[in-house]
Amino acid sequence: MHKKGKTMFFENPPVITGHAGVVGKKEGEGPLAKDFDAIFEDTTMGQQSYELAESAMLHDAIIRALSNASRSPSEVDYVLSGDLLDQCMGSAFALKDLDIASIGLFGACSTMALSLSVGSMLVGGGAECVVAGTSSHFCSSERQFRFPLEYGGQRPPSAQWTVTGAGSAVIEKQSSKENAIKVKAVTIGKITDYGITDANNMGAAMAPAAAGTIYDFLNDTGTKPGDFDLVLTGDLGFTGSKLLYEVLKKEHSIDVSSNHRDCGMMIYDLKKQDVNSGGSGCGCSGSVLCSHIMKQMEQGRLKRVLFVATGALMSPTSSKQGNSIPGIAHAVWLEV
Amino acid sequence: MHKKGKTMFFENPPVITGHAGVVGKKEGEGPLAKDFDAIFEDTTMGQQSYELAESAMLHDAIIRALSNASRSPSEVDYVLSGDLLDQCMGSAFALKDLDIASIGLFGACSTMALSLSVGSMLVGGGAECVVAGTSSHFCSSERQFRFPLEYGGQRPPSAQWTVTGAGSAVIEKQSSKENAIKVKAVTIGKITDYGITDANNMGAAMAPAAAGTIYDFLNDTGTKPGDFDLVLTGDLGFTGSKLLYEVLKKEHSIDVSSNHRDCGMMIYDLKKQDVNSGGSGCGCSGSVLCSHIMKQMEQGRLKRVLFVATGALMSPTSSKQGNSIPGIAHAVWLEV
Repeated sequence: MHKKGKTMFFENPPVITGHAGVVGKKEGEGPLAKDFDAIFEDTTMGQQSYELAESAMLHDAIIRALSNASRSPSEVDYVLSGDLLDQCMGSAFALKDLDIASIGLFGACSTMALSLSVGSMLVGGGAECVVAGTSSHFCSSERQFRFPLEYGGQRPPSAQWTVTGAGSAVIEKQSSKENAIKVKAVTIGKITDYGITDANNMGAAMAPAAAGTIYDFLNDTGTKPGDFDLVLTGDLGFTGSKLLYEVLKKEHSIDVSSNHRDCGMMIYDLKKQDVNSGGSGCGCSGSVLCSHIMKQMEQGRLKRVLFVATGALMSPTSSKQGNSIPGIAHAVWLEV
Repeated sequence: MHKKGKTMFFENPPVITGHAGVVGKKEGEGPLAKDFDAIFEDTTMGQQSYELAESAMLHDAIIRALSNASRSPSEVDYVLSGDLLDQCMGSAFALKDLDIASIGLFGACSTMALSLSVGSMLVGGGAECVVAGTSSHFCSSERQFRFPLEYGGQRPPSAQWTVTGAGSAVIEKQSSKENAIKVKAVTIGKITDYGITDANNMGAAMAPAAAGTIYDFLNDTGTKPGDFDLVLTGDLGFTGSKLLYEVLKKEHSIDVSSNHRDCGMMIYDLKKQDVNSGGSGCGCSGSVLCSHIMKQMEQGRLKRVLFVATGALMSPTSSKQGNSIPGIAHAVWLEV
């Protein structure tokens, strides 16, 4: 692999050999229901806490992705994972019994793109088989970042709904499948701060980061948005997507609106499911990419996808202290 | 690079071209004072919160490491960093104005070894220049994990004192310096759970993970502890170090006691500075490795060091919910 500008290119593109996206009840009632690998009606997963339920869901997604790749945990070099819970406990308790060397990541809602990017670079460098993954849970996020569930706080129109779900993908040097998804290049983003302080408008905090990373990626690869069947963002939602179009047009004269979609707007029916600006959380892009999108690619309906997941880098403490919300975005070029 | 067993070996070992360890007042009164690159008497760093003070300290360490390597931020491919604060805010606010592509990591107190390991693998794979770093701050950790500072809670003998400090190292493909420190191999550890639930005894939670990773490393490399001038753990403290000797002897018939030292026991005078079992926190091994140890290596006093930093994977929430504290440890073979 070699770097050009801010993008790492793979001469021998790593391959996605297995993947799985699993979700909770509400997500299972949305438009992508038929493509999820599992829908859990009981989102407690039989656990004693919502936090352990999130771990159980991530564990499930990883096991399904490995099974889909016909790999056992003992064949995996590294698992790369992170989540939104304090000290990434969602991943710690999901991975602790898997007996796989673990690289903990933190990228907030950008984690699926971050784990795919770093995982691909490790395979590009010398690892044989790695697993990328991430998770989020509405109930564990809500009480950590916002209010106790019982409080029933009102949400402004720009607020998003944290997805209960997890995604995982197995990345290897090669695959025997003909229609395997390849990782052609990855762009790791830098932290961008536009001074947004409204924790109920994370789309606005993340959109400038997405715009910056998309611009760098297109520039380094010499491609245009129209060269991709889909430019897929993670969880900008309705508000953030509109801002992305504006920033890209104004700052870089780039128009992505015609072939852009956002996992946060795809996973729910925005009109019927009362989720305001759309879905969010690491599990949003994790579950949508690793089920619906990757299935569409393997079925030949999508050939070339630019996946850009964004993260809002905030904690309850940083927000209460009046700090801004820096954003980050990482891009992954997927192609069949 | 190529993997053998659980260890990644580098044919062309990445090189540490710059490094810096900076600390607060208390650490500056300890036995390693003369080797730190900066000692901040005012640990608020002139910031409005302890959290932002931690970020300022990490930012300082990174700038010093880059300066030591004669590199500017624009020459860096990736910065890899993480910390103990919720959602890794220490790193987010330290990095946001550096304009470097950022890979967020979470490894709790193992972060210095994790960032060095993943950074070295990225350089081994194709990146030219990466920066690894981490930080912790007594005041931000204490109020997040334990009690408000004003409360003045009593601490049991096994408790440790979170180091106020940060460390950073620049890793590149090659160096013009003759005495440059090379990264010969790295072992990423797996999450180990011995069922420890006492958040005041993190050494016990981390020691089995350290034992496992050290065993795997020695096994893969065909080395003995005596082949290294120093087997350096991150922050096991007095209690955890004793446990490490026991576990290694009992489970693997390995004796590390004669050439083992622990950054947590080196950074303070355990008799005079009232820190119970020793120092802890990401900044403990970060600041000691990137100043004292790396300087000793470049001065020819240490040739071969096995650095093993450990992390206790717990959050206030996971502990309050009665969960165990899983541990993790990553190993880095450093040699001049």
